[in-house]
Amino acid sequence: MAAAMTAETAGRARAFAERSSVESATLWIDARSAALGSEDVLLESALGRVLAAEIVASMDVPPCDRASTDGYALCATETVGAGAYNPLIFQIAETSDAAGPIAAGAGRAVRVAAGDAMPEGADAVVPMDAAQETGGGVVAIIDAATAADHVERHGAHVKRGAPILAAGRQIGAADIGALASTGLARACVVRRPRLCLVHVGLDGVTATDGAGAAPSSDVVHDANGPLLRALVARDGCTVADDRRIDRRRTAIREAIAAQATDADIILVVGGTGFGSNDEAAAALGDIGELALHGIALRPGGSAGMGRLGAALVFLLPGTPSSCLFAYELFAGRAIRRLGGRDARLPYKLRSFAAARKIVSSIGFTQICPVRLLGSDRVEPVTSFDEAGLFAATKADGFVIVPEGSEGFAQGATVDVYFHEDQCQKSKLP
Amino acid sequence: MAAAMTAETAGRARAFAERSSVESATLWIDARSAALGSEDVLLESALGRVLAAEIVASMDVPPCDRASTDGYALCATETVGAGAYNPLIFQIAETSDAAGPIAAGAGRAVRVAAGDAMPEGADAVVPMDAAQETGGGVVAIIDAATAADHVERHGAHVKRGAPILAAGRQIGAADIGALASTGLARACVVRRPRLCLVHVGLDGVTATDGAGAAPSSDVVHDANGPLLRALVARDGCTVADDRRIDRRRTAIREAIAAQATDADIILVVGGTGFGSNDEAAAALGDIGELALHGIALRPGGSAGMGRLGAALVFLLPGTPSSCLFAYELFAGRAIRRLGGRDARLPYKLRSFAAARKIVSSIGFTQICPVRLLGSDRVEPVTSFDEAGLFAATKADGFVIVPEGSEGFAQGATVDVYFHEDQCQKSKLP
Repeated sequence: MAAAMTAETAGRARAFAERSSVESATLWIDARSAALGSEDVLLESALGRVLAAEIVASMDVPPCDRASTDGYALCATETVGAGAYNPLIFQIAETSDAAGPIAAGAGRAVRVAAGDAMPEGADAVVPMDAAQETGGGVVAIIDAATAADHVERHGAHVKRGAPILAAGRQIGAADIGALASTGLARACVVRRPRLCLVHVGLDGVTATDGAGAAPSSDVVHDANGPLLRALVARDGCTVADDRRIDRRRTAIREAIAAQATDADIILVVGGTGFGSNDEAAAALGDIGELALHGIALRPGGSAGMGRLGAALVFLLPGTPSSCLFAYELFAGRAIRRLGGRDARLPYKLRSFAAARKIVSSIGFTQICPVRLLGSDRVEPVTSFDEAGLFAATKADGFVIVPEGSEGFAQGATVDVYFHEDQCQKSKLP
Repeated sequence: MAAAMTAETAGRARAFAERSSVESATLWIDARSAALGSEDVLLESALGRVLAAEIVASMDVPPCDRASTDGYALCATETVGAGAYNPLIFQIAETSDAAGPIAAGAGRAVRVAAGDAMPEGADAVVPMDAAQETGGGVVAIIDAATAADHVERHGAHVKRGAPILAAGRQIGAADIGALASTGLARACVVRRPRLCLVHVGLDGVTATDGAGAAPSSDVVHDANGPLLRALVARDGCTVADDRRIDRRRTAIREAIAAQATDADIILVVGGTGFGSNDEAAAALGDIGELALHGIALRPGGSAGMGRLGAALVFLLPGTPSSCLFAYELFAGRAIRRLGGRDARLPYKLRSFAAARKIVSSIGFTQICPVRLLGSDRVEPVTSFDEAGLFAATKADGFVIVPEGSEGFAQGATVDVYFHEDQCQKSKLP
């Protein structure tokens, strides 16, 4: 047994000597993560969801001609010659009048508010400031109107049958308002990916339950569970199952197999290294396809990916900072694509000058945490190797140094991914 | 009655002739919208919430010295002289051994995985690729180690008592992971603003219920309700009450008064113009403070704001596009501030060249929808006046032309606020 483990270990070490590039991993993901099928949701629950199909207007908006300002609806031809020195007097009719349509020559006007349907026969609205009510049920018009003045024509905003929003659009608040104005109550959106989480080697660790117990300082608390649940929530994913198992290859195999029928995506956390008790890759290879294992990425290099049936399986390192970036670059990308979202990293991207040299190892895509200096420069801070996830809490964002680069010289322009939460409080323009 | 309404109408028309600037409205808001009190939430529910107080580490992370790589923990002094041509043989002890501490001179090594606590007495880890297990319970070390090699010291990531996150930080996924690793289960965050919505003049309009009825094409569907509920959800607000009333001043007064004790913020939608049936401002003035009514903003100029007791009251125009921007610039700003968030517009801001002249009226802050042309230019599209909310669905974003400007010349650099949902699908860099 010891000999077998040794051989295996050596095999894995060799495999890691030929790590896949981040680019090839990305290509593998993109070829296997088209947007999922659709589901109908209430429009009011659709904020942030992605349209599965184009939406066309089911009616004209506005549905009828209407006043676009508060004022007096009348026949424009009757106001010819009106002016401050030639006020023309109109009888005020209420909209609710049974007096019939406004007709040219009748000298009648209807008081309307912006948005009111135009009274039958009227073709213009004279705004309040071009009219003076002097009592006695009459109004003096002191400015001439022409037909269609302050009238919003039916269908002016959108015409029945016209496309409103394209498939693939992530629905914003204004979109919801626009769709609601066409009477739409439901929208057909890309369904959320169903995700299963498998935590390897946490079978003995009690979940932090929030019940108020003081944190114990002599144990290792699981960071990956809370981290990943927050990440997948951000990316629009539903966690269908979340289980803790021991490190054995059979246990991992069983956990993956049990979830593959239900899940669109399975994240196996931990057991991805080339240690003798790292069995995640072998377990996936036993029952499915292990496509890539070992990637030229720091942190996150022991990540892997493959498939079992229709489910994509991602192997995420157990070290939290490695788990974070293996998620962001690989699993998160797949989730965002399955959900029809923008595949790119959901961070704010800005260019800054490097205040100091940013160093990276050639041959590895390296994630370098940086801090803002003033408004236009960044400097590297404590690395993820040195501070784990606390490198992220100390930094304002990170730079991704590509595989072929040794880093950036002082003064070079670098693209910085800002933590969403660090873009506030006017730190960023 | 008609005469009284006339006098009132005239009064309002004059008031609107002296509109407040967007800047003065902003100052009024900022002086009255400090972050609310705090509440305790489960860390796992804290994504996007804003910390009410600084968080300091309650323990060292890591809590003990641990291996930072898979390999063999041993005494570094025992490896002096080790090399490929001088392999030094160590007895392998399991971590679970009862053999006691590793001691210098004993020739023992313990197989460890990254993250394992260092065995007592060991002070370095020799990584897998500097060791060869040859069976028989021994390992050959082929590279010398020095003390602390591949050992992560307790407290290396963060030390007990050290500040982790500052008050005011909007909590991101990596933050949740970092906090969880210190055993934290709950976080003290700024509580969500409690909001009440009052829809004026919608008492006869049936809410779109999503029950599957085909939309009726001859009625006006309420866009403001769905629009505002999406906007306040985006801004982290809880809707405590949502009611539809008629346009009468007494009805508006009662609705505001009924909600002022419970709400941090009340949005009164509709009835804000200077028409004879626009009573929202008068109703607020009757029972509370009407601070501003009529703002030099297009769309959204008939907005108003004031207070009743501790509640901020915003009067939003009933025209959906006006409602949208009166919310974004005023009510939304207050909500974001009350919730401790970044007050600024939650859009992505980028600079582009104007491909065509962008025209605005001097004396008004004007919101001009624009569309991307290629990767570096924008052009104005159908205005909110012409297309209502559909101007937003047709545009990629908008430009805010300040009050003192007549717009931007062709070729000028303009700051564009991009709809979040339009930043995807690689339209934006």
